[in-house]
Amino acid sequence: MTKAVLLIDCPDRKGLVAAIMNFLVSEYDANILHAGQHQDAETNRFFMRIEFECAAELLHERAFAGRFQQIADEYQMRWSLAESEVRQRICLFVSQHLHCLADLLQRYQAGELECEIALVIGNHPDGEKLASFYGIPFRYTPIANGNKAKVEQQQLELLREYDIDLVILARYMQILSEDFVKEWPARIINVHHSFLPAFIGARPYHAAFNRGVKLIGATSHYVTAVLDEGPIIEQDVTRVTQGDTIPDLIRKGRDLERVVLSRAVRWHLDHRILHYGNKTVIFD
Amino acid sequence: MTKAVLLIDCPDRKGLVAAIMNFLVSEYDANILHAGQHQDAETNRFFMRIEFECAAELLHERAFAGRFQQIADEYQMRWSLAESEVRQRICLFVSQHLHCLADLLQRYQAGELECEIALVIGNHPDGEKLASFYGIPFRYTPIANGNKAKVEQQQLELLREYDIDLVILARYMQILSEDFVKEWPARIINVHHSFLPAFIGARPYHAAFNRGVKLIGATSHYVTAVLDEGPIIEQDVTRVTQGDTIPDLIRKGRDLERVVLSRAVRWHLDHRILHYGNKTVIFD
Amino acid sequence: MTKAVLLIDCPDRKGLVAAIMNFLVSEYDANILHAGQHQDAETNRFFMRIEFECAAELLHERAFAGRFQQIADEYQMRWSLAESEVRQRICLFVSQHLHCLADLLQRYQAGELECEIALVIGNHPDGEKLASFYGIPFRYTPIANGNKAKVEQQQLELLREYDIDLVILARYMQILSEDFVKEWPARIINVHHSFLPAFIGARPYHAAFNRGVKLIGATSHYVTAVLDEGPIIEQDVTRVTQGDTIPDLIRKGRDLERVVLSRAVRWHLDHRILHYGNKTVIFD
Amino acid sequence: MTKAVLLIDCPDRKGLVAAIMNFLVSEYDANILHAGQHQDAETNRFFMRIEFECAAELLHERAFAGRFQQIADEYQMRWSLAESEVRQRICLFVSQHLHCLADLLQRYQAGELECEIALVIGNHPDGEKLASFYGIPFRYTPIANGNKAKVEQQQLELLREYDIDLVILARYMQILSEDFVKEWPARIINVHHSFLPAFIGARPYHAAFNRGVKLIGATSHYVTAVLDEGPIIEQDVTRVTQGDTIPDLIRKGRDLERVVLSRAVRWHLDHRILHYGNKTVIFD
Repeated sequence: MTKAVLLIDCPDRKGLVAAIMNFLVSEYDANILHAGQHQDAETNRFFMRIEFECAAELLHERAFAGRFQQIADEYQMRWSLAESEVRQRICLFVSQHLHCLADLLQRYQAGELECEIALVIGNHPDGEKLASFYGIPFRYTPIANGNKAKVEQQQLELLREYDIDLVILARYMQILSEDFVKEWPARIINVHHSFLPAFIGARPYHAAFNRGVKLIGATSHYVTAVLDEGPIIEQDVTRVTQGDTIPDLIRKGRDLERVVLSRAVRWHLDHRILHYGNKTVIFD
Repeated sequence: MTKAVLLIDCPDRKGLVAAIMNFLVSEYDANILHAGQHQDAETNRFFMRIEFECAAELLHERAFAGRFQQIADEYQMRWSLAESEVRQRICLFVSQHLHCLADLLQRYQAGELECEIALVIGNHPDGEKLASFYGIPFRYTPIANGNKAKVEQQQLELLREYDIDLVILARYMQILSEDFVKEWPARIINVHHSFLPAFIGARPYHAAFNRGVKLIGATSHYVTAVLDEGPIIEQDVTRVTQGDTIPDLIRKGRDLERVVLSRAVRWHLDHRILHYGNKTVIFD
Repeated sequence: MTKAVLLIDCPDRKGLVAAIMNFLVSEYDANILHAGQHQDAETNRFFMRIEFECAAELLHERAFAGRFQQIADEYQMRWSLAESEVRQRICLFVSQHLHCLADLLQRYQAGELECEIALVIGNHPDGEKLASFYGIPFRYTPIANGNKAKVEQQQLELLREYDIDLVILARYMQILSEDFVKEWPARIINVHHSFLPAFIGARPYHAAFNRGVKLIGATSHYVTAVLDEGPIIEQDVTRVTQGDTIPDLIRKGRDLERVVLSRAVRWHLDHRILHYGNKTVIFD
Repeated sequence: MTKAVLLIDCPDRKGLVAAIMNFLVSEYDANILHAGQHQDAETNRFFMRIEFECAAELLHERAFAGRFQQIADEYQMRWSLAESEVRQRICLFVSQHLHCLADLLQRYQAGELECEIALVIGNHPDGEKLASFYGIPFRYTPIANGNKAKVEQQQLELLREYDIDLVILARYMQILSEDFVKEWPARIINVHHSFLPAFIGARPYHAAFNRGVKLIGATSHYVTAVLDEGPIIEQDVTRVTQGDTIPDLIRKGRDLERVVLSRAVRWHLDHRILHYGNKTVIFD
């Protein structure tokens, strides 16, 4: 037996759920482990996540795409199938702040993240020690005047070389070019250290301090070509007072960054996220 | 067209979801509006909530129970069907603290609660003015030495007289007898002013103060024969400091009580709650 | 004996605290009940709140200003003294959404707010019934094309007539003119239904829905001439999911609005808020 | 110049604050950087924390105890003085769950914790690698049948040898004996993986799961002779649903444990905690 997750979104239509369920049962003798769905009334769009179990050999013999595509076409579905046993390969991008890197690596070692952390890339050398402590290759790709495009080419090659499925910007302090982002649609997750859409851009803790907010936040999101505007995956906040200086905000914010980034990574790995337009649907 | 909610729980078995879906589609030409499910791995139990739409006349002609019972028997289901248009009739029980009463009545008037608040019963007369401001009948059932059993009889008769579906203890400061509770299984919702199971029983804010906790809570739950031990529906907490006196805890707690009670009421009215053993499943 | 609160802010200087304490003890034989302070390192500014107790006759005989002004001048203090027994007079402005009005009035009746709610002003007649239920005068000041300036004059006169100390915009859906606001510096409290500075302006729940945020918020703040830019007093957030429609956001948001507005009102009444520039210091 | 923190608690009496302030100013020409206070009305007890700055040579020449004891005696004070520059020496106790260890060490390296982590003691060898990665000595003190008293002697000797000021039980899965605890009053901080006083003792996540709570918590507290009954320092909670299995609770709980333990450690190191009876006062 093997487990798989089917993610679907399409225009909402009567009979959809029954059609999908019947397909899985009749073609693969599937046992539905969990099914979640969402309708967006405004756009009349339907979203579904089905976790099912079936005989491994059946799933492999009867190529899924070949059989499912007919239904998919009929209902104009975007869809993807992922076998739960296939571990995704991750690359972490870091700079000098290592709290998210240390946190993700510790969670990885503790078995919280079902994946293969295959590579750490840093534009500063600081992350190397931690990476090698956890037995992960580290590649140093320093960025100096004018070489950013070249460095990005090098990074893209590394992603291919290491057969990466998902890029995590773990407080990577460089903005990726539009070209880079285009090659990795909805496969780059960033953590921004503010409660978006408040305080887009640089130095959000300073901006929050100056505005005198009573809560600060952090946001994990998919990276798109427009800075800090990608589909939000998770957000959280914590209380601050007048007694908190900017260094205090930075310190308190780190606790949020760790949590919202690691949740986003987990959900992505569990195929719990569907994105559409500038939004995400998160399945429990 | 009419909308209805089908709630089911039964031993988990392969083919369940497809069987239910197919039944609704083939018998009632139903459009599935929302389906949520939960499996409890420990007890191997399956829980499902389906919101669907179908022709009103079809639903009324073809008596649901008659047709569905065969499937229900086959899968050993507990199930219930509720038409969304049928407004449940509610009775609020109150004593002297009126913040939950005022809150629920205001939400009711603002259209937040899809029901008919048909009656307010008080063992003190304090709630009468608010009830009549919102146009709800109020019955005063004072409790004096030794007459509690008699008063409960009177209250049970009022519930019958007013054709009540659901009882809300909106900070009602009397413990209902086992006999009373038995007549209303999973149809009495209480709010307890602590984060259960901490501080069961009387004066929980005093107990919380004396223990020096850093957060206080409130809990809404179905009432069972054992005090404060019924299935929990919702809980929330708020931060307290050494500067907070017992009156401060009481005041801060009221904000929690209002919110956790009103959420429980909403979810019950929307048929979002399944209870089993001492737990609840809440469908989003 | 009487209780009073002294609020001070001034450039930070050595000896400040001792000077103030010694003044209160030597001139008024005061018993310090609570003292809170804050230093803003960036602007080198000092903030203090002292709650003290002294003989009522002493406080009245020895006019405070006359004696304290010398110290105040020496240290370039902004300061204010308020006797705790003097109940501030409040006017609530409302439109058609009555949840904040109902909430504040219920808290008022329950003794949570130490003040006199002296008047309710509405640009719609909807609030009248609630106001009179709680025994508060209601004045209807409808706004029609072109008469806003005139209506504001009428409102300002009502504030004088009723001897108002503090104006609460309890979901009042009109923007007050710069002239109006200038007459009431740091004495108008508004609740904005977003987590400022996100979603300034109209229809913030719609904007939050469209951006796909995972938390929505509400903010209470002093009103200044620039819309939604005044010093923030309190903020809170609650979680939303893809399942929440705009009406759900509005409903969930109301719970936040009630809480952040009522906290702001309480703190203002307790003389716990000092504002400077665009920020507030809140004393516990 | 040097900075110091004076912590005081004593029966509340008029003139206390002025007496302390005047002492610091007249004897040490001190600049008060921050003063916080709390009165407990029930026990009529007064608590104060004063952070001040004065000439280092003055503080060292004029022995503080010799001069302050007279005031302390007069007001029956418990008091302590700590120079901010003196870094406390910490020992972390661990078992097999390393998330709190990894978290504290990363915070330490990032400069969040003003102390010297001088030693890690484990009753399992698992923590050694992390400790040595961060350059901290690790001592392995396995516990086998009947040798617990002997191991504790060994541990107490290690604490003396390494000149330890504070012990942190970073998910140390052994209960310390009453004798051990007595030697370290209010100098052992533990994290318990529940919202105390709910779910005292072993396997709290299992108990929480079985009770069907909607929030789970974690609590950091000083260790006293009675299990999980010491003064609570910090608590936090997170939401769980029926979809969360026990492993999910454990995973979600870890995020709470990290945060509540690290906050407690920070506050202790900053001399922000006063304990009395079974409670703590936390100064902002």
